[in-house]
Amino acid sequence: MIISMRLHATKEEIDHVCERIAEFGYKVHSIVGEERVVIGVVGMGDVTACLESLEAAPGVESAVRISAPYKFVSREFRKERSAIRLNGLEIGGDEFVVMAGPCSVESEKQIMATAEAVAAAGARVLRGGAFKPRTSPYDFQGLEAEGLKLLRKAKQATGLAIVTEVMSDRDVDLVAEYADCMQVGARNMQNFSLLKLLGACRRPVLLKRGMSSTIKELLMSAEYIVAHGNPNVILCERGIRTFETATRNTCDISAVPVLNELTHLPVILDPSHAAGKRSLIPALARAGVAVGADGLIVEVHPWPEKAISDGAQSLTLAGFQTMMRQLDPYLRLWKTARAAETALAREAVAV
Amino acid sequence: MIISMRLHATKEEIDHVCERIAEFGYKVHSIVGEERVVIGVVGMGDVTACLESLEAAPGVESAVRISAPYKFVSREFRKERSAIRLNGLEIGGDEFVVMAGPCSVESEKQIMATAEAVAAAGARVLRGGAFKPRTSPYDFQGLEAEGLKLLRKAKQATGLAIVTEVMSDRDVDLVAEYADCMQVGARNMQNFSLLKLLGACRRPVLLKRGMSSTIKELLMSAEYIVAHGNPNVILCERGIRTFETATRNTCDISAVPVLNELTHLPVILDPSHAAGKRSLIPALARAGVAVGADGLIVEVHPWPEKAISDGAQSLTLAGFQTMMRQLDPYLRLWKTARAAETALAREAVAV
Amino acid sequence: MIISMRLHATKEEIDHVCERIAEFGYKVHSIVGEERVVIGVVGMGDVTACLESLEAAPGVESAVRISAPYKFVSREFRKERSAIRLNGLEIGGDEFVVMAGPCSVESEKQIMATAEAVAAAGARVLRGGAFKPRTSPYDFQGLEAEGLKLLRKAKQATGLAIVTEVMSDRDVDLVAEYADCMQVGARNMQNFSLLKLLGACRRPVLLKRGMSSTIKELLMSAEYIVAHGNPNVILCERGIRTFETATRNTCDISAVPVLNELTHLPVILDPSHAAGKRSLIPALARAGVAVGADGLIVEVHPWPEKAISDGAQSLTLAGFQTMMRQLDPYLRLWKTARAAETALAREAVAV
Amino acid sequence: MIISMRLHATKEEIDHVCERIAEFGYKVHSIVGEERVVIGVVGMGDVTACLESLEAAPGVESAVRISAPYKFVSREFRKERSAIRLNGLEIGGDEFVVMAGPCSVESEKQIMATAEAVAAAGARVLRGGAFKPRTSPYDFQGLEAEGLKLLRKAKQATGLAIVTEVMSDRDVDLVAEYADCMQVGARNMQNFSLLKLLGACRRPVLLKRGMSSTIKELLMSAEYIVAHGNPNVILCERGIRTFETATRNTCDISAVPVLNELTHLPVILDPSHAAGKRSLIPALARAGVAVGADGLIVEVHPWPEKAISDGAQSLTLAGFQTMMRQLDPYLRLWKTARAAETALAREAVAV
Repeated sequence: MIISMRLHATKEEIDHVCERIAEFGYKVHSIVGEERVVIGVVGMGDVTACLESLEAAPGVESAVRISAPYKFVSREFRKERSAIRLNGLEIGGDEFVVMAGPCSVESEKQIMATAEAVAAAGARVLRGGAFKPRTSPYDFQGLEAEGLKLLRKAKQATGLAIVTEVMSDRDVDLVAEYADCMQVGARNMQNFSLLKLLGACRRPVLLKRGMSSTIKELLMSAEYIVAHGNPNVILCERGIRTFETATRNTCDISAVPVLNELTHLPVILDPSHAAGKRSLIPALARAGVAVGADGLIVEVHPWPEKAISDGAQSLTLAGFQTMMRQLDPYLRLWKTARAAETALAREAVAV
Repeated sequence: MIISMRLHATKEEIDHVCERIAEFGYKVHSIVGEERVVIGVVGMGDVTACLESLEAAPGVESAVRISAPYKFVSREFRKERSAIRLNGLEIGGDEFVVMAGPCSVESEKQIMATAEAVAAAGARVLRGGAFKPRTSPYDFQGLEAEGLKLLRKAKQATGLAIVTEVMSDRDVDLVAEYADCMQVGARNMQNFSLLKLLGACRRPVLLKRGMSSTIKELLMSAEYIVAHGNPNVILCERGIRTFETATRNTCDISAVPVLNELTHLPVILDPSHAAGKRSLIPALARAGVAVGADGLIVEVHPWPEKAISDGAQSLTLAGFQTMMRQLDPYLRLWKTARAAETALAREAVAV
Repeated sequence: MIISMRLHATKEEIDHVCERIAEFGYKVHSIVGEERVVIGVVGMGDVTACLESLEAAPGVESAVRISAPYKFVSREFRKERSAIRLNGLEIGGDEFVVMAGPCSVESEKQIMATAEAVAAAGARVLRGGAFKPRTSPYDFQGLEAEGLKLLRKAKQATGLAIVTEVMSDRDVDLVAEYADCMQVGARNMQNFSLLKLLGACRRPVLLKRGMSSTIKELLMSAEYIVAHGNPNVILCERGIRTFETATRNTCDISAVPVLNELTHLPVILDPSHAAGKRSLIPALARAGVAVGADGLIVEVHPWPEKAISDGAQSLTLAGFQTMMRQLDPYLRLWKTARAAETALAREAVAV
Repeated sequence: MIISMRLHATKEEIDHVCERIAEFGYKVHSIVGEERVVIGVVGMGDVTACLESLEAAPGVESAVRISAPYKFVSREFRKERSAIRLNGLEIGGDEFVVMAGPCSVESEKQIMATAEAVAAAGARVLRGGAFKPRTSPYDFQGLEAEGLKLLRKAKQATGLAIVTEVMSDRDVDLVAEYADCMQVGARNMQNFSLLKLLGACRRPVLLKRGMSSTIKELLMSAEYIVAHGNPNVILCERGIRTFETATRNTCDISAVPVLNELTHLPVILDPSHAAGKRSLIPALARAGVAVGADGLIVEVHPWPEKAISDGAQSLTLAGFQTMMRQLDPYLRLWKTARAAETALAREAVAV
């Protein structure tokens, strides 16, 4: 932590800051600048409380954290990638995993048709919402429990794992009964009450980045889940909100390599919500593979223009099949690169 | 709703769009452009489903909504301002209401000292968090039920109304027992599950704008609460997230007059979270009065540098008193303007 | 400057950083943290080169500047406000100055009608563009030299000072012949070549904030002009680009008090470009006065719907008159506050 | 163009709007909605003036453009990709072109070493700034004419084409003498005066997207250059400004496929400015190839930590070589895809 005093801060103000630091149990290393006094603080653990306190002290210009405020999710805590297991699969392991399915579960016919087609095309996980967060109270809010049952049916027919969103504290147990992976939607990324409950739940969690959350905040939300007991968190970049309106969101593709440096948790890309437009998805999916994501989550619907939600950004069954075929050579490059990385990591351990 | 077809869309594509519109029960008014075909759609009620469906149809370039997607909260639904009553006060009426208090309730001594000081300085509502949404799982999460009891004690001592945040579906009943006004924090503005429960609850709701939510989304979230049965919603502008880092958030002061045009609900300003820095708050508070807000919500702490959270943006008790004194002539201008507006509205009705 | 090393940075890497610091002539104060090494650097003057170099050195996590990178424009360089004189007026002095006029100079009739009306209503400066930066090459690009002559005519008739935009290096001399104040538009805020020429020119400069420039970058651009010889710079907040689309830009009202803390230069507000919508301008103008700006620049047109540009955000002549009348009590509060501040500053000097 | 009237707009207001439309020479198609009147306007050419005028008319809620405001740069104007020739190369043709070099030309030794290394590794164009736009007036501003001469020397030694920035209207002729391609920096993307001069100049132009410019604004700036006579424009996505601070800018990777749909001009990606951090560049470069860009522009420096600018985001010579080797299999996939597209396009023409 670095405390920068105002120009001409008084000796009393500086002493006072140093006393406060000592009260919090940290050590002071002061730097007497020619222009202004800057105070370095060294200490283990979470310094948030001290930092907020000092920001409010008289004579202080700013207080800046040096260490990351998260621990369990950091690469420093765990060097090797974490592979999260769900239904026999590994996300973050040696396979690139594609999740696909409709925005909402709408009917048995719809979900079964989708499940069979995406499984045939190479997807390993079926997505589909039973509880839907909709901006308008007048929009379709999901089939709820009935939707969960249809997802189970689709799983039984195809062997696909199921990822589906949980929106309310009261639904955690119900959703956990049906889902292989519990999705936290972008709007709930900082619903800390829900995150705590998911920490207590044993199911893997797919945590989507909030549409205006920083990468650091995404990691803090993941830390909530891990700190409350559940280490099985998959992160998802799904586009952020910016001034650009040509796409629904702005796909922050750099978030993938940035997260790969900062955390051992797997990271997948959602090109559908990032783009908001069907025609852009195959190009973004290729970019996601090339940039080093661990998987994709893609919206697919048998009849997009009859979809209750997100039709404009859903691939048709044929469109998904074409995309998967075109992705194939990129996936082979991905596997080679991942295998090389794994071999390197093993060598490092052996030494 | 306006459907703009691609250049060179085929006759089949255009006919297909017109058929879909008819299926949804709307009327088609087609405009045959020289460059491209644009189709106007006229109909009552919520057109979201139709719009999303058409966006996904072949040959369609874009589908744009013309009418607002909210109804009960709009000025078109109700011309006069709504005044929300809480504990004998009116927000949105003839008085400018100041809410003040600490970020978190920390101790009896802290909350009682604050309540007495802010009441003496002219505040009418006490704010204070018992449940705290914190970015880090390692930060103080609030005194919870104990905090609510301390708020009640402060209310009994001072007569101030209480506004406090509810974060979880499971806490709605508990918080409603103690609060005169239920606060929905910025991070929960689109926690639709919570909004529905607050619709069922009889307490007035203070709905804070999400830090990257548009004004339209704020109104849609208010519509959720109203459509689920609770018309008593107060909106709050508290700064949005932008690229600027000189302030914690960017105070979107224009949101106040924009909301005054779009909705009859009252709008208050939170200069503390908008600025994130104590020294800026008095100037923003003056701007809030001058721009026509219905009130302010301000963070005040007896010992900001010992505050567990938000110390840097909390006024001291003396600072709050000074600010209120300096606001006084602005509040007199506000009252004159509001009274003139009310008189004008009455005349309009009389005619 | 604070250099934060990576966890487990080697001794060689740390030594290397310290050597580089010495090469730049700065002093090292090292802080040996338990988790990571942080190195404080103390030195006078501009540290940019050193900072950029160290950011690229092996083992370095980040390098952060502590002191502001601007000098002449800072409050630390000059404690009292600078009042900029133009045509007998002072911006930043004891009077709140309103600048008004059309987006573009379109005709003699238009500019004369506007000049007379805004002068009668209390404006002291006439704005009007002769060279227009237009997004489209097919839009009206301004009357150029002819427009400048019409502005002079309006000045002769009314006594108003003239502020008008200069867009090109090649037009600096021409515009300086006619303008009392040279406007740098938002799109040219970082046209460093133009800024240097304006440094050499004797005319006061109105520097508009770029639509996605930080407050610090605005100050750096002002520093360019001052460092190249011209201390007469007026800053202008005119709204920044954000995700919100209800207004043309987002009026960053906090920029006014933030700039008042950081710089001695005067700051005016442009509510017209910030809002982009006529009906919002009076409320924003009041907020601008209340928040402590030194003036306003407002778009006014005798026939807004026949305006070649910016009609939707231009006040009519009658609308401007009404706004000015309503601003009057706020301006009286402004003068009282400014007089009190000036008295306080004089006392401080006397002591 | 679609004009949406306010609810309860009067008949006079509606008639007035229709008259104005007729005055501009467009045809009216009115849609009488049950809730509000919406007026469709059909006409060829640029409707900006009409649109701005109507936005300001009484009773008008909003006026929305349907057609794109650019023409020459659109895919509708020209279906096939434009390949821009420079120094025997084609950008936008059958080869993926890598441009590489230092941020600033600093010395003969530096530029020659870089040129030889990047040529050997597979780059075809040398980048390097002789005129530097720097945020601070105290930073290095470039070697200017001397820098241009060093670039020529490097070209003679290696055969690389030269791309270098022009910042001022006064330097266009000088830079054109040395450069194969004139770069317009992000800060000058809307320096319309410069764009017009580049329209008159025969050299190809590399137009970088402004850091907060929309894709549409980028195309409008390209339209300026083309409309003023120079069809040889290469677009460059280099990251946009958002709230995220983990990277210097946010790489808007979707801009590549979006531009490929909207324009026939080539699009290249600048991963260096987008990321601002050396370690992220190889991953973003792979993403750029996979997403379908026509090339890359990458910062490379023989001694990044001694670089005068942008050291932290510059690859070393060895780092660039490694990146190019790893890109190789992706480039082979790119060529196959491009060849298939070209074959398809030829067939379409043959039919």
